[in-house]
Amino acid sequence: MTVNSGDSNAPVTVVRAGPVATVTLNRPERFNALSVEMIRALDETLGEIGDEPDIRVIVLAAAGKAFSAGHDLGEMVARPEVGFYRTLFAACTAMMRRLQHLPQPVIARVQGTATAAGCQLVAMCDLAVAAQSARFAVSGINFGLFCATPGVALARNVSRKKAMEMLLTGDFISADQALEYGLVNQVVADQDLDAAVAELAAKISAKPAISIRRGKRLFYDQAEQGIEAAYQLAEQVMADNMMDAEAQEGFRAFLEKRRPDWA
Amino acid sequence: MTVNSGDSNAPVTVVRAGPVATVTLNRPERFNALSVEMIRALDETLGEIGDEPDIRVIVLAAAGKAFSAGHDLGEMVARPEVGFYRTLFAACTAMMRRLQHLPQPVIARVQGTATAAGCQLVAMCDLAVAAQSARFAVSGINFGLFCATPGVALARNVSRKKAMEMLLTGDFISADQALEYGLVNQVVADQDLDAAVAELAAKISAKPAISIRRGKRLFYDQAEQGIEAAYQLAEQVMADNMMDAEAQEGFRAFLEKRRPDWA
Amino acid sequence: MTVNSGDSNAPVTVVRAGPVATVTLNRPERFNALSVEMIRALDETLGEIGDEPDIRVIVLAAAGKAFSAGHDLGEMVARPEVGFYRTLFAACTAMMRRLQHLPQPVIARVQGTATAAGCQLVAMCDLAVAAQSARFAVSGINFGLFCATPGVALARNVSRKKAMEMLLTGDFISADQALEYGLVNQVVADQDLDAAVAELAAKISAKPAISIRRGKRLFYDQAEQGIEAAYQLAEQVMADNMMDAEAQEGFRAFLEKRRPDWA
Repeated sequence: MTVNSGDSNAPVTVVRAGPVATVTLNRPERFNALSVEMIRALDETLGEIGDEPDIRVIVLAAAGKAFSAGHDLGEMVARPEVGFYRTLFAACTAMMRRLQHLPQPVIARVQGTATAAGCQLVAMCDLAVAAQSARFAVSGINFGLFCATPGVALARNVSRKKAMEMLLTGDFISADQALEYGLVNQVVADQDLDAAVAELAAKISAKPAISIRRGKRLFYDQAEQGIEAAYQLAEQVMADNMMDAEAQEGFRAFLEKRRPDWA
Repeated sequence: MTVNSGDSNAPVTVVRAGPVATVTLNRPERFNALSVEMIRALDETLGEIGDEPDIRVIVLAAAGKAFSAGHDLGEMVARPEVGFYRTLFAACTAMMRRLQHLPQPVIARVQGTATAAGCQLVAMCDLAVAAQSARFAVSGINFGLFCATPGVALARNVSRKKAMEMLLTGDFISADQALEYGLVNQVVADQDLDAAVAELAAKISAKPAISIRRGKRLFYDQAEQGIEAAYQLAEQVMADNMMDAEAQEGFRAFLEKRRPDWA
Repeated sequence: MTVNSGDSNAPVTVVRAGPVATVTLNRPERFNALSVEMIRALDETLGEIGDEPDIRVIVLAAAGKAFSAGHDLGEMVARPEVGFYRTLFAACTAMMRRLQHLPQPVIARVQGTATAAGCQLVAMCDLAVAAQSARFAVSGINFGLFCATPGVALARNVSRKKAMEMLLTGDFISADQALEYGLVNQVVADQDLDAAVAELAAKISAKPAISIRRGKRLFYDQAEQGIEAAYQLAEQVMADNMMDAEAQEGFRAFLEKRRPDWA
């Protein structure tokens, strides 16, 4: 049973199927370029779904041959004003950061090419599943624009030398390389992409939402801290989580050798 | 020639063999769960060995089929009080942090399953050798408890996406995956586990203890700093280390093409 | 068309070929040990080339069988004074840090052994290409000196457990392991080393120098920051970069389906 967001001409569409919302970039003829309109639509859509308690996992997908070509070059060259660029990149960063601030985990479902800010989307998602034929690049340097903001995300996913190589050469890496370097979690045959994403989403959406929400937030918070402060944060989160009815039920169910009743 | 700590009913036992102390979690029937008693015993034992100048390497081992199942779920569900949980997690963190504060390197010797805080033990040790059949998970989420504190350690060992996947799914990874992701240093056939650990321990215990102690502390200190401060710390440590008789002898021996006399 | 720096007896030589300067450690009979003289010569040479606008990529190479054996042990043992050691290590760090502060990317071209501070050179370069037979170690511990400053660089390239293992054991790793761990970008057959380095250098030197310079600086600056500050820095760099004539031309050329005119 799925509910479509309705307007199939919208830059971003949403399909809800039980606890999983699939958000789809819907400008396939533009390779899902992150225009001002697309960034705003994606940011708003994610914000709305973030407030829906019944949605437990978000899949970030893309229509057509490419996942996303990154920023809209035509739009950018049409307004050569530093103020416009600053506003554009700030809006893009806010949208990217929202992926980590959402209470639900976000899984990138990647086919085709994920380029520049398109690659950044993958890096900013909590998890990513890629089709075997997918390819990834931070290729702005080929047009004279160093992928600075995508580099922030990339450098928090892959090793320093590999990130630097991708940023300085603009070269594509394969899905298998993306897996090896740490940019994606899983690579599957192209025809198995939806099944693999659905399986991962189902697995996570079966866990208590409160525990996932606490944990996701903690994960990114602690990553910004030294180990002492990170542990203090984590201890608090874990003690609070233990007081949740879901954890108490989960522990009792385990000890009583039965399935937890989280309904 | 080994010296056993004596009480084979103790939650933690110690065997000293020359410069190597093997600390063994000794509640095999409880899968070496980290109960309040176990955490205290392990913390105290490590503290005592840390003060023994003749011990140069510590091996953290576990009796029975499992390395450690993490926290003791029965104990936790029996006292649903946030104060108890905070005290418990703080005590556990203190014990975990001691592994890094000890002057001697600690090698985890991992067989069976290392789960939740059991996996955290592996992540917090300086080095880890795993049996081929060992498996690792941060599986609290399966009971409704996000592995927050284990996540702090895990995130400092493996890449962000892999850590997140383990934390959100609770799935086990194999020893080979643990090696690939960076959680362990070496995977060997089950029957070769003791030999591999002994070889690694012997290699390290042959180095000057003062240099190892200085270096281990520096390694974790610099990891908390930006590169400028990290280098300043490292320069001081290295200059002080060069003034040690052991380094002067080591350098002279090298130049004179003979073995250093560190006895 | 190449220009040699002339004095083939100098500790460091330079060959300029178009936009690529190859800086070569030139004490093959000393395995290119980083003596006081060598550190000074390398630091000065890099500083000079950093100011040459026509040079877009720097290759750091080494004459003879070894890339570099690290510090000069004879020189160090001859002056057992903590003040001398501090000055020496501070000078070495300044030279190492310069590699990252240079406006041009630096590619390490590694043959033979890269040991201790020699391994640190590889870790501090932006990119590294290794011959299949190359080997890497931070082996000071074998002489009683923990490789503290090399460890700062190593820990920012490879995972924690692997860095610790190399530092505590002093063991060599192969070129393939260095690739797998993240210390180098590429491993090629020994006879293909120069071609592989030349290809990588040519690819990067074809990009606009201003974009590369902005990006390299941003990459290391953002790595020292939390994600919020990192993104703010990156947004500024990217907006400024977009205002460069090179980026405007690059974007227009892409949209007009022609090659950019960056000459």
